Amino acid sequence: MSQQHILKLDSQSPDFADKLNQLLAFETVTDKQLVQVVDDIIAQVRQDGDEAVFALTKQFDQHPASSIEELFINPDKLKLAFDGLNDEVKSALTLAAKRIFAFHEHQKESGFRFVDELGNTLGQKVTPLDSVGIYVPGGLASYPSSVLMNAIPAKVAGVQKITMVVPAPKGVLNPLVLAAAHLAGVDSVITIGGAQAVAALAYGTKRIAKVDKITGPGNKFVAAAKRAVFGQVGIDMIAGPSEVLVYAEGEQADNADWLAMDLLSQAEHDTVAQAIFVTTCPAQLEAVESAINRALQTLPKADIASAALANRGALILVKDRAEGLTVINQVAPEHLELSLDNPDELIEQIRHAGAIFMGRHTPEAIGDYCAGSNHVLPTSGTARFSSPLGVYDFQKKSSLIYCTPQGAKPLAKTADILAIEEDLQAHALSARYRHQE
Amino acid sequence: MSQQHILKLDSQSPDFADKLNQLLAFETVTDKQLVQVVDDIIAQVRQDGDEAVFALTKQFDQHPASSIEELFINPDKLKLAFDGLNDEVKSALTLAAKRIFAFHEHQKESGFRFVDELGNTLGQKVTPLDSVGIYVPGGLASYPSSVLMNAIPAKVAGVQKITMVVPAPKGVLNPLVLAAAHLAGVDSVITIGGAQAVAALAYGTKRIAKVDKITGPGNKFVAAAKRAVFGQVGIDMIAGPSEVLVYAEGEQADNADWLAMDLLSQAEHDTVAQAIFVTTCPAQLEAVESAINRALQTLPKADIASAALANRGALILVKDRAEGLTVINQVAPEHLELSLDNPDELIEQIRHAGAIFMGRHTPEAIGDYCAGSNHVLPTSGTARFSSPLGVYDFQKKSSLIYCTPQGAKPLAKTADILAIEEDLQAHALSARYRHQE
Repeated sequence: MSQQHILKLDSQSPDFADKLNQLLAFETVTDKQLVQVVDDIIAQVRQDGDEAVFALTKQFDQHPASSIEELFINPDKLKLAFDGLNDEVKSALTLAAKRIFAFHEHQKESGFRFVDELGNTLGQKVTPLDSVGIYVPGGLASYPSSVLMNAIPAKVAGVQKITMVVPAPKGVLNPLVLAAAHLAGVDSVITIGGAQAVAALAYGTKRIAKVDKITGPGNKFVAAAKRAVFGQVGIDMIAGPSEVLVYAEGEQADNADWLAMDLLSQAEHDTVAQAIFVTTCPAQLEAVESAINRALQTLPKADIASAALANRGALILVKDRAEGLTVINQVAPEHLELSLDNPDELIEQIRHAGAIFMGRHTPEAIGDYCAGSNHVLPTSGTARFSSPLGVYDFQKKSSLIYCTPQGAKPLAKTADILAIEEDLQAHALSARYRHQE
Repeated sequence: MSQQHILKLDSQSPDFADKLNQLLAFETVTDKQLVQVVDDIIAQVRQDGDEAVFALTKQFDQHPASSIEELFINPDKLKLAFDGLNDEVKSALTLAAKRIFAFHEHQKESGFRFVDELGNTLGQKVTPLDSVGIYVPGGLASYPSSVLMNAIPAKVAGVQKITMVVPAPKGVLNPLVLAAAHLAGVDSVITIGGAQAVAALAYGTKRIAKVDKITGPGNKFVAAAKRAVFGQVGIDMIAGPSEVLVYAEGEQADNADWLAMDLLSQAEHDTVAQAIFVTTCPAQLEAVESAINRALQTLPKADIASAALANRGALILVKDRAEGLTVINQVAPEHLELSLDNPDELIEQIRHAGAIFMGRHTPEAIGDYCAGSNHVLPTSGTARFSSPLGVYDFQKKSSLIYCTPQGAKPLAKTADILAIEEDLQAHALSARYRHQE
């Protein structure tokens, strides 16, 4: 049994900053051929509508349907799929859905109104989106948890129409995905996928209603199609490879096997997933490395995990907590696990992380399924400027401005002066009517 | 004097739906050559850094600077520019800034924490972005109001470093733009523009620090560059042409001259700006048309306004308020003006609008400058799924999950079951450690 290769870094070495930057560098190259293929598919769907969607679905998914109608899943089937689950899975999925609903209720936003010192009313109105499309990958990567995580925030936001698209290669669907759609309250399911599904949701066809926003993960065709329709509809972030940073300080209660498995649960996702362990304790770094090697001997997806660790994994030794925090904020990890007696001591100083798993009894896996918080999180350092998927992604705001005749006068005068400075005379005149009447 | 051509629509005619759709259609064609030019500029800046930024600024802006250092504006100059304004303009800009600060304070978000029935703590942490770049167009379209509207929400959010870029053709800058930067609390101003400025902010150079998000309007090169760096940094919406929808019901207090000037204040922006008047009253439709014709005779920017009205303007007669609301929601206007005695009666039923100007004494011009709400609003129907620029664009969220040893057990068991269903064994094992210990 050969030793797993994992990069080791020490924050005290002179080239640490460069090495860390190299570790974090991950650039998705824009593949011009891919963009062209996707643009063509979108153009086809816009021109030929349902006919194009049907033909492309036959071609790419080898779907046995004989008409576009057969690609629509009868809503009864969702409930049937749920009823058909074994009791253990049914309870687990139900608990997950219930907790996801409960967490997201806390994110609901409401508007505000206030009266200024001139007597004018100002405010903000919050409105749910009318309709949303949820993309769910088919085949192997068809995860019921993703259905819950995408659809429930939209439902909580008050979206009236949630359409789920999921490709069914050779007509085969994961019943768990349909069961999850039932629990989440999805309104309509269509077994289409790829760029053609994104195009149909963005522009609409005779049979497929256009939506206002498209969320959910997908392969490179789906990602390119979402990027292409951005502006026509809203989209969520385009996800990069997933990553976890586990931070510890060699405290007595730490268990190297637990920490190793938490890192491997990220690494098993795919060969470019990133698992980083940061500790202030050299002995713990060695212990976790050994535990990883032990676990890899029996892990079913050891090949993938091993490749991920070799490609993008790292074990980082830092001098102290302050340096640990610097590394954490520089990585801006999607998932951050704090294996500490008192993790709350660090929270204020953590500026960038998608989700923070606190203490030893909160592995990322709990967050992936059933803590209740969302598992769609900003990847590849985008936690610097973006947030987990949430209810706020399915609500939008309108400003309200309501001036009284008297309260308008000083504002109209101000607008008049500034509009003249910006050489916009109709603006100035429109304001002038309100202060000179 | 020829009569201004404006499209007239009647919601009772059988082809109304089609005509309305045609009126609203506006597609920005992706110009592949433009994308290539912008990609090349970005690649140049990433490779040659400050040298490329300096060379491109000399080339495109004919800037007389003899080194990159000279492109940085000394912070003292901002205050000097403000001090040099005449008193009237100084007071107007100060009032605008004060009101924009006051409005946006209401948008600040705070996190939450709650304890679930198992004793676990869940929550959400809100953190400002570290650094933001504000793009301000140079030359003619250099608006001090845009500086306030982009920088103040970032400041209120708690962003520590706000860098403003503004091209200075031939070295010339609008002092009002610098004065506005002073009032808004901008930390640093660099006189660069175009795709090279966006690239420098997104990737950083030796002298120019990279930022986490770039907002602000710009020409087609700037828009294409923002689209290209999206993901590397956050961006705001890419703005389309601006539009207003003015709604009235022929009430006695309406003044056709006021309504006409409100429409023209949109139309004077550019030849593809859209001004739409919707009324339930045929006589009012005629009166507003006449008032537009009168106003165009003396308006300095009559050429632009006239072209905009001919290209994309419309006067729409609807049967009743219900139909008016349907048209409003279908247009999803950036600016909506309700010229009504009781505009609040409609608010609940308006689902899509960037900003709603209520009553007769709240023209869009007041909102453009000094109501306090933001004038960066979703255009071209994107109010269906997006919001005004706000403090929320400069804050982001991290989920918090903190399980107790006992509280973790049922969740870990659930995660274990679902992970097995998704064929992710390391996830299952990581969870199992927490429920089988």
